[in-house]
Amino acid sequence: MKGQIMSYQLTTNAILEYGNSVFPHQSIISHLPNKKRHEYSFSDLYKRSKKLSNALVNTFGVKPGDMIGTFAWNHYQHVELYYGIPGAGAVCHTINIRLSEQQIEFIINNSEDKIIFVDASLVKTIEKMAPLLVTVEHFVIINAPANFETTLPNTISYEDILDEVSDDFQWVESEENDACGMCYTSGTTGQPKGALYSHRSTYLHALSVMSPNAGCYSVNDTILLIVPQFHVMAWGFPYMCLLAGAAMVLPSSNLQPDAIIHMLEREKINKANGVPTIWLGVYEALKKNPPKEELTLEEYLVGGSALPQSLIEGFENDFGIKGVHAWGMTETSPLGSVSRLQPKHKSLPAKEQLKIRAKQGIEIPGIQLRVMQEDGNIAPRDGTAVGELEVKGAWVIDAYYKTTSREKFTDDGWFKTGDVSTIDADGYMEITDRTKDLIKSGGEWISSVAIEKAIMGHSNITEAAVIAIPDKKWVERPLAGVVLRNKDQKVTPEELIAFLEKDFAKYQIPEYYVFLDEIPKTSVGKFDKKEMRRLYAAGQLKAVLVKN
Amino acid sequence: MKGQIMSYQLTTNAILEYGNSVFPHQSIISHLPNKKRHEYSFSDLYKRSKKLSNALVNTFGVKPGDMIGTFAWNHYQHVELYYGIPGAGAVCHTINIRLSEQQIEFIINNSEDKIIFVDASLVKTIEKMAPLLVTVEHFVIINAPANFETTLPNTISYEDILDEVSDDFQWVESEENDACGMCYTSGTTGQPKGALYSHRSTYLHALSVMSPNAGCYSVNDTILLIVPQFHVMAWGFPYMCLLAGAAMVLPSSNLQPDAIIHMLEREKINKANGVPTIWLGVYEALKKNPPKEELTLEEYLVGGSALPQSLIEGFENDFGIKGVHAWGMTETSPLGSVSRLQPKHKSLPAKEQLKIRAKQGIEIPGIQLRVMQEDGNIAPRDGTAVGELEVKGAWVIDAYYKTTSREKFTDDGWFKTGDVSTIDADGYMEITDRTKDLIKSGGEWISSVAIEKAIMGHSNITEAAVIAIPDKKWVERPLAGVVLRNKDQKVTPEELIAFLEKDFAKYQIPEYYVFLDEIPKTSVGKFDKKEMRRLYAAGQLKAVLVKN
Repeated sequence: MKGQIMSYQLTTNAILEYGNSVFPHQSIISHLPNKKRHEYSFSDLYKRSKKLSNALVNTFGVKPGDMIGTFAWNHYQHVELYYGIPGAGAVCHTINIRLSEQQIEFIINNSEDKIIFVDASLVKTIEKMAPLLVTVEHFVIINAPANFETTLPNTISYEDILDEVSDDFQWVESEENDACGMCYTSGTTGQPKGALYSHRSTYLHALSVMSPNAGCYSVNDTILLIVPQFHVMAWGFPYMCLLAGAAMVLPSSNLQPDAIIHMLEREKINKANGVPTIWLGVYEALKKNPPKEELTLEEYLVGGSALPQSLIEGFENDFGIKGVHAWGMTETSPLGSVSRLQPKHKSLPAKEQLKIRAKQGIEIPGIQLRVMQEDGNIAPRDGTAVGELEVKGAWVIDAYYKTTSREKFTDDGWFKTGDVSTIDADGYMEITDRTKDLIKSGGEWISSVAIEKAIMGHSNITEAAVIAIPDKKWVERPLAGVVLRNKDQKVTPEELIAFLEKDFAKYQIPEYYVFLDEIPKTSVGKFDKKEMRRLYAAGQLKAVLVKN
Repeated sequence: MKGQIMSYQLTTNAILEYGNSVFPHQSIISHLPNKKRHEYSFSDLYKRSKKLSNALVNTFGVKPGDMIGTFAWNHYQHVELYYGIPGAGAVCHTINIRLSEQQIEFIINNSEDKIIFVDASLVKTIEKMAPLLVTVEHFVIINAPANFETTLPNTISYEDILDEVSDDFQWVESEENDACGMCYTSGTTGQPKGALYSHRSTYLHALSVMSPNAGCYSVNDTILLIVPQFHVMAWGFPYMCLLAGAAMVLPSSNLQPDAIIHMLEREKINKANGVPTIWLGVYEALKKNPPKEELTLEEYLVGGSALPQSLIEGFENDFGIKGVHAWGMTETSPLGSVSRLQPKHKSLPAKEQLKIRAKQGIEIPGIQLRVMQEDGNIAPRDGTAVGELEVKGAWVIDAYYKTTSREKFTDDGWFKTGDVSTIDADGYMEITDRTKDLIKSGGEWISSVAIEKAIMGHSNITEAAVIAIPDKKWVERPLAGVVLRNKDQKVTPEELIAFLEKDFAKYQIPEYYVFLDEIPKTSVGKFDKKEMRRLYAAGQLKAVLVKN
């Protein structure tokens, strides 16, 4: 027997209608790439998103399910794209500007983007590959200065397309399981893979992220969205803020510590998100130049990599600002867990509290976690049993776009994260390691296997093994151990970097190199990276650092 | 194109699995009808709910969609029924113990309950009507004392049915649109009408209620659930608390002000819900006997009727406890809106802030409100345009159970609330009046029309009109204006009360009576209740008060 309840589709249209209806006057503030400050309201966002949807459907002939790419920083126009593209029934495909040209080209062709919205300040990257982008019919330029010139074909200015249409437009109504957004992974093993989010997953993720045990966001908050809109939908914050009625501050390319501190002060920001690397920079800048007035910032939500304990302590002791750990991945929309103290922890010594806060935390409603041991049993929640973290939930992908491989999915429907973790008796998950082949640098995955494979493609190299080494700024950086085929014929690190540049983003390419007689091997003849890490830690791998 | 996201059914099973997995040690505390205190954990709830589902399926042969009734106070066993009945694929039908015997009998027969779970302390009511309850196969007695005797047929003790089965049971998995709960309205116009909630509506309601702009509930809270579980699912709090990880305190029949104050102190409760009448009593008791230590209670969420401003001010000024207005109805699961101040209100004078808090507040995510003017236009959100409040959303019913009438639904899919209201430019809805025929007493609707009709069934009465008059304790009470057929043949108020008792709950029966020569009439000959209210306010209707 069915319940007798109205059909109410959980869509991005429903989110925007809600935000516009209940919080029409709330602010969206952008610090644009040209340093100018722009402020408008949810109601302005609503009207301009309607115009955008109207233009997509009636000017460009966009059809339901069409892929529309964005190549842009965080700013109000990008938020309009987050709503206006799904509002036209299409899919908002955010392209990571930090990937290599080869990867960006692959992504655009793989997703078959029909239109690409590109920031004027980022147009150079796209210009180079334009002839290869066979599916793209139009390039729409955002924030183009006067007299802007580009070699891109079929360009039009973003403001021009909005100017030509009315905001009197009926959303193209999607069913809640229809796709509304797509984001590619950073390509840890081979090419980047697409995660295709639905309206429903986007809505439920936003609703859960705002709940008090997670982000606890409301109309009382002014939130700085440092996490890029081109990466995992800025953690869904542009959607969540409309449900929460929270003011948004969008920094675009102004991500230098001083620029962030200026925004924190200027906009009286009280909450923020971002990867640890950003917060490390902000902390050091604040230490150098302590702010005249106490910052309004209360807490920053951190994901992507673990926050160093010293940073948590420093921010809290020196500036009264709390670092809150979250965990997630592109495949999980991304938020899966958040670590906050509970009443039972209040009587613990500070050191013990810090240990709990350094964990990745408890699942947010809609997410389930389990740890799968090597013997195929689910690990008990005892804080010590270790295994691969698996996740299931209302915003976890069940396949990669255009990919048939089920390698990352279990037979009973869980996603295998590649993280190695424990869960304790209070439900706190902690990532203790990760499946051996991945390196996480500045919040982005780097596949050691992919780099090894590429290096070993060099004619004078026989073996290559890449491991993660600790890095103050990026948390981890790759170090490559290399074995020359012909030891008399030198290969320089600089030469290897140039060799890798065609296939990898800059941040993925190792700047540390060690030339070895042989890579240590396991008993079954595999590269023994554990041994390499041990040697490095013991000071027995002397790496050459190349300023990359 | 569909998103590529896991299918994740929003069910009560998913809520309980989540609560048990993430907050296994959180507490559920019951103050039972026999005054004994009982405490156990979410993990205990989980195991006993599994046993209950197991017993329903394997001992009683319950099938998906079967209706199972509950007739009980708020306590842990009733929470087990909230999960264990849907966990067996059946529908948890909570029966309002405060309705008249005739209404209760109607409800049980209308819903075709197969089993009824009844508190030992409430068994007398059901015994009287048992022969008429033709669909009921078993009566399960909760909290029966030793040597408990009843005339009910086919009875068994609740603990006995759990003792006989294992907690190793797979939930009967429901699809999220399947029914999981049912609650009847109080029968404002004619018989009570059933609202059939789905798993999905229950889940989404719970998730939205916990959000910061609504209740803001988390693992940091210990919440007193005064709103009865037999009425609109206790505002969904038994579900919400499992998602939030909040401790629950369940008062059962201990609803006297002193009993509530004792629980507030004993359990260190910081949040609570309830109708204004309860809080009025608590306030007066606290004034008489101020607590020795400051209460931990921070705020109480109030719905059902408007909170008198004097009570909001008194609680806040005298005890530092905040009253928060919410609005909803049986047909809306029930929560639709909550009134909290926003940052923009912080600089307003206290009196202006109070005016905003006295409104019914802003829609919570998943709900849409609009005010429909008499001319058929949607009222502007200007705080002055008045009309009937209409509501739409993810937990609003789209029909009454076994009822074909579309009277309460608009052609474009909105539910007509019967409330008259305004919405201001900041989205705050305020109920200014209500459709003329309803009286709201102690949070419950009373239909003046139904009572009038019944009174006019008396052989010596020709006309009767019932209006609401203000009441300190119940907010409103009905007053009946009556015209005798034969003026020489007296009818006493006591006689009228006895005459009404067979068809109405005690609280619905007027205790104020005025004998008139004629009921004032409008130009088209209808009873002019507006004129009656005016006469009453002017002191020109001298009512006889009968202690009912």
